[in-house]
Amino acid sequence: MVILQIHIIHVSLLLVCVELSWPFAAGMMQWEPAVDSSSSGFIPRVVLELASNTKEEAAAWLLSRIRDPQRNGGAELLVEQLGPGVGAQEKDNPNLFLVGASWPRLLSGAEDVGLFKEYSDGSMRGFTCANKHNFKHFKGEGDGFLSMSECQYIIKHELDTLRAKEETHVPGYTQAKLYPGKSIIRRLQSKGILIQMFPLHDKEDLKRLSFSWYKKVKLSLQPLDEIKHYYGEGQALYFGFLEYFTFALVPMAFIGVPYYLFDWEDYDKYVVFAVFNMIWCTVILELWKRRSASLAYHWGTLSRKKAFEEPRPGFHGVLGFNPVTGREEPLYPNVKRQLRIYLVSLPFVLLCLYFSLYIMMIYFLMEGWALSVHDENPTFWTGLLLFIPSIIYAVVIEVMNLIYRYAAEFLTDWENHRLESSFQNHLVLKVLVFNFFNCFASLFYIAFIMQDMALLRHSLATLLITSQILNQIMEAFLPYWLQRRRNKKMVRKVLKRRIFEDKVLPLPEQVRLEADMSMYLGTFDDYLELFLLFGYVSLFSCVYPLAAVLVVLNNITEVYSDAFKMCHVFKRPFADPAANIGVWQLAFEAMSVIAVVTNCALIGMSPQVKGYFPDSETQLILWTVAIEHGLLAFKFILTFLIPDVPKYIQIKLARLEFESLEALKKKKMEASEVSKKIQ
Amino acid sequence: MVILQIHIIHVSLLLVCVELSWPFAAGMMQWEPAVDSSSSGFIPRVVLELASNTKEEAAAWLLSRIRDPQRNGGAELLVEQLGPGVGAQEKDNPNLFLVGASWPRLLSGAEDVGLFKEYSDGSMRGFTCANKHNFKHFKGEGDGFLSMSECQYIIKHELDTLRAKEETHVPGYTQAKLYPGKSIIRRLQSKGILIQMFPLHDKEDLKRLSFSWYKKVKLSLQPLDEIKHYYGEGQALYFGFLEYFTFALVPMAFIGVPYYLFDWEDYDKYVVFAVFNMIWCTVILELWKRRSASLAYHWGTLSRKKAFEEPRPGFHGVLGFNPVTGREEPLYPNVKRQLRIYLVSLPFVLLCLYFSLYIMMIYFLMEGWALSVHDENPTFWTGLLLFIPSIIYAVVIEVMNLIYRYAAEFLTDWENHRLESSFQNHLVLKVLVFNFFNCFASLFYIAFIMQDMALLRHSLATLLITSQILNQIMEAFLPYWLQRRRNKKMVRKVLKRRIFEDKVLPLPEQVRLEADMSMYLGTFDDYLELFLLFGYVSLFSCVYPLAAVLVVLNNITEVYSDAFKMCHVFKRPFADPAANIGVWQLAFEAMSVIAVVTNCALIGMSPQVKGYFPDSETQLILWTVAIEHGLLAFKFILTFLIPDVPKYIQIKLARLEFESLEALKKKKMEASEVSKKIQ
Repeated sequence: MVILQIHIIHVSLLLVCVELSWPFAAGMMQWEPAVDSSSSGFIPRVVLELASNTKEEAAAWLLSRIRDPQRNGGAELLVEQLGPGVGAQEKDNPNLFLVGASWPRLLSGAEDVGLFKEYSDGSMRGFTCANKHNFKHFKGEGDGFLSMSECQYIIKHELDTLRAKEETHVPGYTQAKLYPGKSIIRRLQSKGILIQMFPLHDKEDLKRLSFSWYKKVKLSLQPLDEIKHYYGEGQALYFGFLEYFTFALVPMAFIGVPYYLFDWEDYDKYVVFAVFNMIWCTVILELWKRRSASLAYHWGTLSRKKAFEEPRPGFHGVLGFNPVTGREEPLYPNVKRQLRIYLVSLPFVLLCLYFSLYIMMIYFLMEGWALSVHDENPTFWTGLLLFIPSIIYAVVIEVMNLIYRYAAEFLTDWENHRLESSFQNHLVLKVLVFNFFNCFASLFYIAFIMQDMALLRHSLATLLITSQILNQIMEAFLPYWLQRRRNKKMVRKVLKRRIFEDKVLPLPEQVRLEADMSMYLGTFDDYLELFLLFGYVSLFSCVYPLAAVLVVLNNITEVYSDAFKMCHVFKRPFADPAANIGVWQLAFEAMSVIAVVTNCALIGMSPQVKGYFPDSETQLILWTVAIEHGLLAFKFILTFLIPDVPKYIQIKLARLEFESLEALKKKKMEASEVSKKIQ
Repeated sequence: MVILQIHIIHVSLLLVCVELSWPFAAGMMQWEPAVDSSSSGFIPRVVLELASNTKEEAAAWLLSRIRDPQRNGGAELLVEQLGPGVGAQEKDNPNLFLVGASWPRLLSGAEDVGLFKEYSDGSMRGFTCANKHNFKHFKGEGDGFLSMSECQYIIKHELDTLRAKEETHVPGYTQAKLYPGKSIIRRLQSKGILIQMFPLHDKEDLKRLSFSWYKKVKLSLQPLDEIKHYYGEGQALYFGFLEYFTFALVPMAFIGVPYYLFDWEDYDKYVVFAVFNMIWCTVILELWKRRSASLAYHWGTLSRKKAFEEPRPGFHGVLGFNPVTGREEPLYPNVKRQLRIYLVSLPFVLLCLYFSLYIMMIYFLMEGWALSVHDENPTFWTGLLLFIPSIIYAVVIEVMNLIYRYAAEFLTDWENHRLESSFQNHLVLKVLVFNFFNCFASLFYIAFIMQDMALLRHSLATLLITSQILNQIMEAFLPYWLQRRRNKKMVRKVLKRRIFEDKVLPLPEQVRLEADMSMYLGTFDDYLELFLLFGYVSLFSCVYPLAAVLVVLNNITEVYSDAFKMCHVFKRPFADPAANIGVWQLAFEAMSVIAVVTNCALIGMSPQVKGYFPDSETQLILWTVAIEHGLLAFKFILTFLIPDVPKYIQIKLARLEFESLEALKKKKMEASEVSKKIQ
């Protein structure tokens, strides 16, 4: 009920934003469905693009390895070279290959990757070929049981785990060394022979998805299941979190508006709001864990085991034996990595933080100068001038974040992490610390050193609004504009050669168009943006209650612009079978701890509370600290008390485990009966 | 090296304590080995004692169910009634039954309980009968592969999971209802028909164990592997923790002694000590996790899966269907339990805390009175009088803890938890909160409200020493004295009838003697004691540096008295396949967080630090709070940075998982090859 009401309001509020995304969609080209390929039965799912100057022997070897049956160590997949399109040009790369797989191969691959599907009794179980007929939507050989994104994920997994046998190097490339067990695709990637590997879009599905997602103006939630179906669990969880976060902010926005309207200049009335803030940010994160677990359960990723991670393509080291797999692979001593982290990366991050502090001080000088100009001769223009330093500072912050981001990526890459997950964790940590400091240091300084609540409010508002506008431009408008240009060029090229109706692109053009699309770099930046917004709201929204409203508005446009860019601007990404939002849950929780501390301090500084301790500032501080400690302790206890997984899912998981145990016991008993009879 | 040196010191320091335990051992009776039973081949391992007035049909039914083969739903175990002993009396209970098992039955039971044993390649793997010859110490049929405690654990598990079939009640007892799937043993226990079930001691093993454990005066660590072999992993982990904790305290004791000797009256020099304290208590707990993981790995419990827990014997409710197993069993609505917890237990605990506060205030009144008497007319006797209130208070605290303990057990039982583990967690929580408050409230009051460091030191010393003495008496001397009386009586009784050499008791007498021994109630009280000692040291040892020395001394006597009581005072407990110290790790970590806060506050209050902020108390407090927050944050980061499981074990576990995955893949591949050939 509440959700619906809220939705009505947000949709009516945000028709403007919807209208923003409409024209993009209308301008897009449509293309031919991928199914209409030359050889009937072969459905192209994944594209491999080799460098245009790849030696023929290397390409032939790769294709034969991909086609080889599994018992000979091949991947047993189908692969075809993409023919030249209608508008074929000299500069077009001929080395584009389409990869598909037979239906039985996909099923056995689904078992390899440990896919969970719905069983006939409604529970989620690991798929096995032997047991395939007991799964709910399994209808003989044919499509529909595995979604396109699952097929693509399976093909990617099979390609990634295609290993070298006796080859010492890639044929034709003596410097591209191989050794038994080395992933061929990874080596080709790291040597630049394989330029990219990406899954193809599916026109029909995409059309359906975009209509139910962002093209209709109707009261509804996002179609998370469809998003999961098309993009995989990682993407769907991000959009689920974005939606959840937006709804969670709505009560805060509701309280914020009258607060803002009626107590405009009454900065000391924020105690109630700060208390609400603290409870809110603790509770929503706990509830999100439950929501996330129930989503992941229904998508089959909650109890799915992680496969063994291959080393990253860029990982290098001296050849040795992996102690876990016993396979030959490069080893890099952990001590060296630790030295790089603590002696280079850490000092670099600290230096950046110092630099950011320096910029902050310059901002305060500018702020002081603008104020003095305004005070000397206050006009409308000097009043406007007051906002200039904050706007400049906000822009500078965004630019610094961007530059730092590249530096952090470079450094983390140089640290030479073996696994992608460890690389990601170190990158997230580096970026988070800097972004947090960069965005919030000035606010903390104003709040606790200068103790100027009017300036805090003014500064917060400018920072928030400027960064939101910049973000939307950087994130959606810019890539859209680039993509639109590319799109038009391709259409013009095709139109030059032949006249075709309803603007459907033939397969070769479609593949080449997608190959040129920008690469989607994962949900990192999206989560980072939400993290900073969460910071603005949870830390300081008590002094600027409109923050929640702004963030809600931002999130709604964010849904539309993110959905649009996923569907029409970027290459389709491979599915990522995530069971939760990973390291970001931790980041948000850390922020909520900081929020408790900050809000307690703000409450302690409020004139209202100070009024209770007229004589002794010491008493006031001691009480504030004591209450803060109590709240933190309570927060941790709450984290323990609220189960992370809803009861009904716990029961389902326990039942599954129990059944498999019972089945094992029964099997054993039967075996022992048989052996007794034989004796 | 360091460990050895330390050990030399502690042993030479503690010869007194060793001597304390010698006479106990010498006074003990020896008995005949359990192996010499009447029917050759049958080794009695577990004793079942039914009530002496048990109806014959019930006993006969139970025995037949235990003996029935597994395919008929029995336990397939061997069971014999214990014959009357030499000194048989009318009042002796005739219903004592000895349970054993054939060797193949034990092996299949080992597979049922998921025992991990050392594999031929040195890794730890789940035992399976099919694969038995690949395990390291497996030498055909015969003893030695499974330890006595493992056999007993297996038999207990098989008895516990012996389930009712079509019976509606226990024969002869219409009120002892049964339904298909109900554990028979649990029902017999809850109806008082089964009085007890306990494993037998093994004279030879026990002799060996006690010699290598506490009867020799030699430099060595505790024989943890032997303890594990005889008592199981839970016990061994406790003694491992006790030893680890003692060693961890040694550096502190070393710093404490000169500190205490040379700065006797210099209370303000404790800043260094407080800082050391904080680092110490964080680091040792992190390192213990690693030590515990490596012990548990070598004992095979680290990756062992928990079996499905049966409901507690006392659990009652309306009959329904368990949503996990689908079996009929009593259900009790969670809401009712929550109501009992929050509306009865919680207010009760709060009331007890209030009462404890009240007692504390009386103590302060007494203290004030003693001080005024001493000040009026200071003599040697009034000087002694100063110690009286603290001693009385310490005794009262111990008595209150004891009474509260019973109340907590009653309440937790009344809350009607379904699982033993949940019962234990609620009990631990209740007891911990009260004991913590009861023991430390007065110290916190003195430290932070009265700010009287001299009184704090005096009070801490008295509390610590008195509680240690009381504990040792309650824990070892009292049960020893009771057991000795019982022991002597039995020997006298046997001696009356026949003269036998070397004082070896025949089996029936031995079993009856053990049946009369006190029940060992688990490691709860032992951990609780360590927890409180850890509190005294980590919270306040900076004002009384000798605390660490006292705790070290206490721990060493504790090792001896605990070892002694385990071997000679209590019934042998069933092994508990624990992988870590469970909820206690959490409790100790919570204490270490409180220690950081307390020590920071103590540092902030020290005249030394106050000297840096002569003008502003506010500045001092703010700095203290800021540093404390920094330290807490650092502590949490440290918890993340130090891996809980040592690298080499992580690798071993990962290799095992990898191998099983590869094996599965290979099997699948072979199966698909076969099916292809058939087609």
